[in-house]
Amino acid sequence: MSVMEAVRPINRTEAYSEMPQEERRAALARERERHGAFVQRGLGLNMARGKPSPEQLDLSLPMLDLLSSQGSSEALREGEPDDLRNYGNLAGLSEMRTLMGAIMSVPAANVLAGGNSSLALMYNLVSMAMTQGVLGSAPWATLAEQPAFLCPVPGYDRHFALTEHFGIRMIPVPLGETGPDMDVVEGYVSSDPFVKGIWCVPRFSNPTGVVYSDETVERFARLAPAAEDFRIYWDNAYAVHDLMYEDAAGVAGVPGAEDMKNGMNPADEVDVPVAKGRARSGEAAARLSNLRDACERAANPDIWYEFASTSKITFAGSGVAALASSEANIQAITQTLGFQTIGPDKINQKRHALFLPDLAAVQAHMARHAALLRPKFELVDRVLSEGLTGAGVGSWTKPKGGYFISFDGPPHTATRTVELAAQAGVVLTPAGATYPYGADPLDANIRIAPTYPGLEELETAAEVFVVCARIAALEQLVES
Amino acid sequence: MSVMEAVRPINRTEAYSEMPQEERRAALARERERHGAFVQRGLGLNMARGKPSPEQLDLSLPMLDLLSSQGSSEALREGEPDDLRNYGNLAGLSEMRTLMGAIMSVPAANVLAGGNSSLALMYNLVSMAMTQGVLGSAPWATLAEQPAFLCPVPGYDRHFALTEHFGIRMIPVPLGETGPDMDVVEGYVSSDPFVKGIWCVPRFSNPTGVVYSDETVERFARLAPAAEDFRIYWDNAYAVHDLMYEDAAGVAGVPGAEDMKNGMNPADEVDVPVAKGRARSGEAAARLSNLRDACERAANPDIWYEFASTSKITFAGSGVAALASSEANIQAITQTLGFQTIGPDKINQKRHALFLPDLAAVQAHMARHAALLRPKFELVDRVLSEGLTGAGVGSWTKPKGGYFISFDGPPHTATRTVELAAQAGVVLTPAGATYPYGADPLDANIRIAPTYPGLEELETAAEVFVVCARIAALEQLVES
Repeated sequence: MSVMEAVRPINRTEAYSEMPQEERRAALARERERHGAFVQRGLGLNMARGKPSPEQLDLSLPMLDLLSSQGSSEALREGEPDDLRNYGNLAGLSEMRTLMGAIMSVPAANVLAGGNSSLALMYNLVSMAMTQGVLGSAPWATLAEQPAFLCPVPGYDRHFALTEHFGIRMIPVPLGETGPDMDVVEGYVSSDPFVKGIWCVPRFSNPTGVVYSDETVERFARLAPAAEDFRIYWDNAYAVHDLMYEDAAGVAGVPGAEDMKNGMNPADEVDVPVAKGRARSGEAAARLSNLRDACERAANPDIWYEFASTSKITFAGSGVAALASSEANIQAITQTLGFQTIGPDKINQKRHALFLPDLAAVQAHMARHAALLRPKFELVDRVLSEGLTGAGVGSWTKPKGGYFISFDGPPHTATRTVELAAQAGVVLTPAGATYPYGADPLDANIRIAPTYPGLEELETAAEVFVVCARIAALEQLVES
Repeated sequence: MSVMEAVRPINRTEAYSEMPQEERRAALARERERHGAFVQRGLGLNMARGKPSPEQLDLSLPMLDLLSSQGSSEALREGEPDDLRNYGNLAGLSEMRTLMGAIMSVPAANVLAGGNSSLALMYNLVSMAMTQGVLGSAPWATLAEQPAFLCPVPGYDRHFALTEHFGIRMIPVPLGETGPDMDVVEGYVSSDPFVKGIWCVPRFSNPTGVVYSDETVERFARLAPAAEDFRIYWDNAYAVHDLMYEDAAGVAGVPGAEDMKNGMNPADEVDVPVAKGRARSGEAAARLSNLRDACERAANPDIWYEFASTSKITFAGSGVAALASSEANIQAITQTLGFQTIGPDKINQKRHALFLPDLAAVQAHMARHAALLRPKFELVDRVLSEGLTGAGVGSWTKPKGGYFISFDGPPHTATRTVELAAQAGVVLTPAGATYPYGADPLDANIRIAPTYPGLEELETAAEVFVVCARIAALEQLVES
């Protein structure tokens, strides 16, 4: 089943689009009454931001115990190149470079392990390009014409906000089921020397959840940019953020887990091998082809910057972010970092390296996240299906990973839906946020973030969403 | 006794300057022989960087125990505005804003608590000014003329490197015993609209150790810049870094500490009141007047940016940095931070807040640092006095705090001294590093960093330094 497959009305006779106007008015009145009841309840719910829930954050609490005054002194003192508690090591702890490289399928030599925010790394690279240029090119701030970025839409609002902040022109590019429309991308990139970058969330794209196809990755690697300083900003934020891992119960060896029968030895409870973090129910994991390798093959080694972080693996505010790129890019960036900082927080990096010694440990940990997240995605899908499929209102994604469900209502209903939800005490991401300049030409897309609320709150919020989406759709039909 | 007082030859008859050429040649041969002996030893010593020693870092190890999986969950979950483990809170934890404000004598509302590097905050502000401007002024990258910074000399090499990196012109300003030459500063600032900033390390200046006088601070506050976006970059890196606190033994209540008689209750061993962190031997602490208050009084509220960090209080690579400024500046900066990051590492901030709940705790902790550092400064001063005073070679500072001793040799000897030291296996800060563009017009100044090596290594390194300084001085006299 396709990630992007629209949920179609099951019963076409019930669809609002087929209803006589009179019935629509009656339906609208009923929905408004339901909405009023929600307003009365004075709810305070939020489906706006892609934040991990407290229960997810609890999964990483044991990490806090891994360094202490007793016994850690030597591990810290004998770090590399020397005492981890002191200044230095711009590229980050080699253990974390290796781990973040494994997460991105990139060699450690191509990785910088930094502070707590991959967004800060992206901002930093754009900022450096503005004032210093890229590998010797002219600083963007000195260009005769405004630099531009391609922005697959719908996309991530913080990418767009950052870009706009620097006065970089944003060019929307349609994002389909296999990634951005590569004909459009190639057209701009090969012809316009002021097109300097493209934002990509290649795996479980924010918000639509698509995974770029092998062909898309290959075409990215073979781009022939008019600008020598064009870069692909490959934000691999959800590199290991599958929803379809085995249950935490199965993986972590909670007694009674039915996974035991699948060859898992009870003695392996802690040391979970990679294979246990496999896709659930035999489904293949959503595979993303390796951009770095493709760029190497295409003799385009410097065209990519890849980003990842442990923000949604360990602690969202206290994780480790990483940048990967060619050795030439990494060398130039490290040189600039030398003017900027005394190095990353290597103690926090060490704590992470102890907690997540290898990719297998990451995958086992992500399976525990998946066990908490999957019911939330399934719940929202169920409530939306029950409430909107019959009425034929909108379509939404069923992602295999990531943090979002992307909802497309009928044209000109998104702003109204978000407004109605706010009246009923449910905060949604602002309509338009998934488009550059906040301007969704159809006013149709809404990003739903189901990860943070508890199941009960989420169910209520989804029910509110259904009522609001129905009202907005009916208003369009009744008033048009 | 003045911090800047030069150490003069005790016995003028022994001074190289008074020696007949023949005696100088004999002296030079003797010193070269001693130097050769050091070279033979294959030393690997370093007096180059202002790093805390492992023993200093050990002082903060107990901080690692303050958050754990047991019991910390609630403290983290119930943080502000919500779960400290999650995204958010650009301005930082209010406890840390309060603490860093106390260190800088600035209200918490004027403080942002950030990541692990105050240098990164400085870089960030300059970078923002380059691309965004300052409170609505034109971005520096778009100016018709190159922006310029005033650079008190000798000064901090990383300030200069950062400034040069952004293509900002550097104008040296002489730094005396009371701070920068304010006539020169006022002259530039009031007349040149392209002069956009000045770097200051106002307390225990890097490297000379001077503390700016009250009059200097007052004149800074009353500057009338030609540029509306001129700012004072007040790097208060050594705000609480006195060498003259009571011994750790005295403060921490180690049994038998003679400080007990000074009214310290043995029951107070842990909770050390501020007064106990007083200057040693009745010497007054080196007082820095409050720039923020002076700027407020002078109706110049937005002219200052102040920086501090716990890098040399807790862990040099894993501390908490802070920026203080007017509320208007802080508001504008926070807005830009919103495009840049998901917030600082609030778990590390919480750990710091628990370890250092108030200024008294900071001062007690800094007294423990002082107990480790003071013997090192005294040792270097003794070795240099014994080796160079009689010969009349150079002068150096006896700072009451900070991380450096500033040495001025005879003109045209600094590069040679550093070179000779390197041959003998002692790394010194490169000659010229304390001047913009690495260009010390007299080639006289060398920054000595005595904090990192152990006492034995430090003594050897200082002895090597003496031999090298003597050779360089004699070579000048013999060859001139």
